[in-house]
Amino acid sequence: MAIALIVLAAGQGTRMNSDLPKVLHRLGAAPLVAHALAAGRALEPERVIVVAGHGAEAVTKAVARLDPEAEVVLQEEQLGTGHAVAQALPALAGFEGRVIVLYGDTPFIRPETLEALAASPADVTVLGFEAADPGRYGRLVAQGATLERIVEFKDATEAERAITLCNSGVLACDAAVLARLVAGLGNDNAAGEYYLTDVVAAARAEGLAAEVVTCPEAETLGINTRAELARAEALFQARMRAEAQENGVTMTDPATVWFALDTYIGRDVVLGPNIVFGPGVTIESGATIEAFCHLEGCHISRGATIGPFARLRPGAELAEDVHVGNFVEVKNSILGEGVKVGHLTYLGDADIGEGTNIGAGTVTCNYDGVFKHRTTIGANAFIGSDTMLVAPVTVGDGALTASGSVITNDVAPGALALGRAKQVSKPGLATKLFERLRAQKASLKKGA
Amino acid sequence: MAIALIVLAAGQGTRMNSDLPKVLHRLGAAPLVAHALAAGRALEPERVIVVAGHGAEAVTKAVARLDPEAEVVLQEEQLGTGHAVAQALPALAGFEGRVIVLYGDTPFIRPETLEALAASPADVTVLGFEAADPGRYGRLVAQGATLERIVEFKDATEAERAITLCNSGVLACDAAVLARLVAGLGNDNAAGEYYLTDVVAAARAEGLAAEVVTCPEAETLGINTRAELARAEALFQARMRAEAQENGVTMTDPATVWFALDTYIGRDVVLGPNIVFGPGVTIESGATIEAFCHLEGCHISRGATIGPFARLRPGAELAEDVHVGNFVEVKNSILGEGVKVGHLTYLGDADIGEGTNIGAGTVTCNYDGVFKHRTTIGANAFIGSDTMLVAPVTVGDGALTASGSVITNDVAPGALALGRAKQVSKPGLATKLFERLRAQKASLKKGA
Amino acid sequence: MAIALIVLAAGQGTRMNSDLPKVLHRLGAAPLVAHALAAGRALEPERVIVVAGHGAEAVTKAVARLDPEAEVVLQEEQLGTGHAVAQALPALAGFEGRVIVLYGDTPFIRPETLEALAASPADVTVLGFEAADPGRYGRLVAQGATLERIVEFKDATEAERAITLCNSGVLACDAAVLARLVAGLGNDNAAGEYYLTDVVAAARAEGLAAEVVTCPEAETLGINTRAELARAEALFQARMRAEAQENGVTMTDPATVWFALDTYIGRDVVLGPNIVFGPGVTIESGATIEAFCHLEGCHISRGATIGPFARLRPGAELAEDVHVGNFVEVKNSILGEGVKVGHLTYLGDADIGEGTNIGAGTVTCNYDGVFKHRTTIGANAFIGSDTMLVAPVTVGDGALTASGSVITNDVAPGALALGRAKQVSKPGLATKLFERLRAQKASLKKGA
Repeated sequence: MAIALIVLAAGQGTRMNSDLPKVLHRLGAAPLVAHALAAGRALEPERVIVVAGHGAEAVTKAVARLDPEAEVVLQEEQLGTGHAVAQALPALAGFEGRVIVLYGDTPFIRPETLEALAASPADVTVLGFEAADPGRYGRLVAQGATLERIVEFKDATEAERAITLCNSGVLACDAAVLARLVAGLGNDNAAGEYYLTDVVAAARAEGLAAEVVTCPEAETLGINTRAELARAEALFQARMRAEAQENGVTMTDPATVWFALDTYIGRDVVLGPNIVFGPGVTIESGATIEAFCHLEGCHISRGATIGPFARLRPGAELAEDVHVGNFVEVKNSILGEGVKVGHLTYLGDADIGEGTNIGAGTVTCNYDGVFKHRTTIGANAFIGSDTMLVAPVTVGDGALTASGSVITNDVAPGALALGRAKQVSKPGLATKLFERLRAQKASLKKGA
Repeated sequence: MAIALIVLAAGQGTRMNSDLPKVLHRLGAAPLVAHALAAGRALEPERVIVVAGHGAEAVTKAVARLDPEAEVVLQEEQLGTGHAVAQALPALAGFEGRVIVLYGDTPFIRPETLEALAASPADVTVLGFEAADPGRYGRLVAQGATLERIVEFKDATEAERAITLCNSGVLACDAAVLARLVAGLGNDNAAGEYYLTDVVAAARAEGLAAEVVTCPEAETLGINTRAELARAEALFQARMRAEAQENGVTMTDPATVWFALDTYIGRDVVLGPNIVFGPGVTIESGATIEAFCHLEGCHISRGATIGPFARLRPGAELAEDVHVGNFVEVKNSILGEGVKVGHLTYLGDADIGEGTNIGAGTVTCNYDGVFKHRTTIGANAFIGSDTMLVAPVTVGDGALTASGSVITNDVAPGALALGRAKQVSKPGLATKLFERLRAQKASLKKGA
Repeated sequence: MAIALIVLAAGQGTRMNSDLPKVLHRLGAAPLVAHALAAGRALEPERVIVVAGHGAEAVTKAVARLDPEAEVVLQEEQLGTGHAVAQALPALAGFEGRVIVLYGDTPFIRPETLEALAASPADVTVLGFEAADPGRYGRLVAQGATLERIVEFKDATEAERAITLCNSGVLACDAAVLARLVAGLGNDNAAGEYYLTDVVAAARAEGLAAEVVTCPEAETLGINTRAELARAEALFQARMRAEAQENGVTMTDPATVWFALDTYIGRDVVLGPNIVFGPGVTIESGATIEAFCHLEGCHISRGATIGPFARLRPGAELAEDVHVGNFVEVKNSILGEGVKVGHLTYLGDADIGEGTNIGAGTVTCNYDGVFKHRTTIGANAFIGSDTMLVAPVTVGDGALTASGSVITNDVAPGALALGRAKQVSKPGLATKLFERLRAQKASLKKGA
């Protein structure tokens, strides 16, 4: 059946105490809204509509990056969830099928749960959960899967308050039915808001079938404060860590490895303590990442060893058996098989052939203040320590640059390139210089 | 009412198994005694007297740095808390008002609690707490706020042992009363010590009023072992983290951010995992600190982005939108708006104008072996990679230094400064060199 | 009494989901099998026999490194623990005394426990433990220390299942008795395996005495999955941290200090958060290790200060009061008293005399692409920033190298060595260059 998603992402999140719209706060190195979008995308929906409001401009930009086919509609005033869905309806024009309404601040919902909602034969299907502490949640009055009605806590009788099956707010509905029911919603309540939840009563009043589908409470976890966000992050990380362990990844201290939503790590990878994954990291089997590494947008092949204290930035592509050592940064660079970059180096916008050794203190000078340029180094070359490679520049296969050289011109294969002054020695001069400086210091002290 | 503080800080802390006096062990990057001093200072006391004993020289130095107006008196022999207070009395000569006696190893006491003690109308007021496990604490026998007597555990009846209101040791007393009562203390007990606690009985015997003020048990937590210190640190950090979250700070993993006593962080600051704050850090709203940063004595302005792997040391002043990247150290330097220092750089004793770009591998050579010197760089300058700035030296606005240059003379605004040898190429020489080295290696292996 | 150890290390560890043999997975920076070997070595056994199977080649290599006097025997097929011990018997030929059978994947067993097994007067002594949750463990039916029989869970009566004293699998036995009993083992069971446990029944059938020695359950913890390995690591670390605290070590956050099996740390050492110890680290009293350090195979003397962001690799020997600062790597180098290496430096294969100062950005160029060479620097020398020391090279006492110099020839004591080009200035050229580049950029934008 054709599916469409509406993701509600208009709230300000007052309790976040932030200028950033709530759905753009990050979880697993991705905006909150990315999680709901990813879960929904797994159902291959025909249309995805995001309702933005507070910080709509920033939300629109983020959604365009995360899910270019999603359409963002604007809810100018925040008049309730029913009103929010109403803003999305024009974008559903012509769509026939089932609509699922999700929340941008509810990141843990699983595709399997959404599939169950989509597959439900009822006209309206509500996602419920058994609450450990039902508190002030709305209660679902149901007979088996049949949903009779939703009772708000304040309107509930004692018997209804004893119900532990609660309303998550997520629901699925036939598109035409949803459009008709939403159009009929009123706002005759204390807050003066249009509640999406009221479509269930309206559907029942029309004699339509309503059902409830359930999921574990953890899937419905919403985020309202920074502390809740931090707890959600901890929960997210715990899941990613357990999954990695099952897949054959060793972590010395799992509590100090931070995954992103899309991190992929192969079997027999060893991760030391304190590793941070930004978005877009793939690590093949048998690679080793030592402690204190920061990896983002990079690909690490089999047998590579990284760190400690290494930073790989977007576009770092490391072939098999590459070694990147301490205090090394690699950005937008392709390192061939067996390349070694051991110490204190910046490689940016570079292509480096297999077997090449990069000495300590090497820098690809890729920026001239206005443009960025590429450095190309061949295979089996030897870049001496403290070589400055002023891009654009090419060093050929098997070439050697003398340590301390500034390389501004291309170096032919097999050539030795030097760019440094000859060493001169001034006998006794260090002794004299230090004597003079120390005498100055002594006289300053005397004077003081 | 005029207030004076006496802070007892003479103990050795045998169970710390340390040469360092107990009150100088660190909590929140500050000596233990700093916490009690800070809580007491909030009451704006007329006099602050610290009683030092073990490691008095080191304690005196630390107190002079922490609270220059505090007076340190020496307790040569440790003959009990009453004796310690007696040593402080001469320094109170002429003071009229209320004296509060605190402990240097009890860091969690809050100003509000001390204010309640100060405001109590009784002649002597003792700070009590409801103990979860009263164990061997002294019990407070009280009727409402009226304190009848303090019973030591070993002297208590079964009924008295059932009391859960316990003595923290902290007390407040009229200065003249305290002096008279302390002068009358005896040491006729098993340990042969003078106990401050005995002033309560003495006061009651004179018909004076005694009261009890209570606080949560956690405020009275004392520290006796390294394990207790580590637990206190964990408690301190938990509080700081929760407070930061409430103030609108996002932390990916709060458990890996370590605050100092005086850390100030603005709203919408984002802190990645693994950030260590030393003393004296201020971060304005909207700055981002990435993972693995070590910050101390620095000021970071709005919109700045720091790290990962950055170290800011005392005197680092970063204006708005500054970027300090990986493997960069900044010390005693002022960076103007929008300055970028992306990689592998040491900036010490430098002034850098707005919009300037500092290339990778740049070093301000600020130390000549005897003196330190300053480096001044203008606005919108471009410091090429691996530039050595031999201070004292000035680079003008809009100037450029070629990568690999050693700058020993001032560079005029708009000028290009070069200090490097011309590149020379020796065709085929790398091939020959490596052939020779490999042949040597092969013959060495044969020989072995 | 003479003692021999048999360590069973042949299992694949299917549930580890790994190509690495289970006993080579790491705990406390050492292979699992190292822990059992270390516990056993404390008894000064005459012989140590390790039974390898899966990944035997790798296990043999690892054992040779860990315990060169241990003998590795091969179990070609894994036909049970009794079969594994049978493979070890030929290597025990001529040995008279007591044999203890241990497991390579059971790392927490203590020497004291093994001593109790060795000292037991019975013919066969089994190590038992009181299980919190006995589950499917084999039960030990005992009267006091006398072991009557071992009942497998599946064969146990209700009454026997109520027994909480369980079989760890570890046992001790007279060598001759063990040889005879193992030779008689059958494999008439569901799995078709030879079970070592069956020697107890065989011994009892012969009328020999069997005893049980007990230890805490935690000592018998075996490791079967990555998650269990991570939990074992956490347990190991908790013990090392508590022990260090008792020995007078301060850790800001003990949960972020990772010890190796052999880490030695003296009294009054202060460890900041996030410190990783690889094997072979010794730190003398009163040294300070700041946050974010990675230490391996190094010796740090009294009063030294390390980090933050320092990496010490094998062979780093630091004398008293040495300072190694941020983004510094030291490998196979000896640093004399009071040497300072503050920033962004690589020292490899170097000897540095006392009081010498190493400037930021210094590199010992120790590798020529084929061979490694040593750098020697005298006492009280001053190595300017960004000095390249092209080894083999010697810098004399009190000598000075100018910043940015490449030092290829020896420098005499007290001499000043320079290897850099003179600074040249091109007035106005920076302005022109940037104008041209910006114009290019503008025209590109127009074209686009």
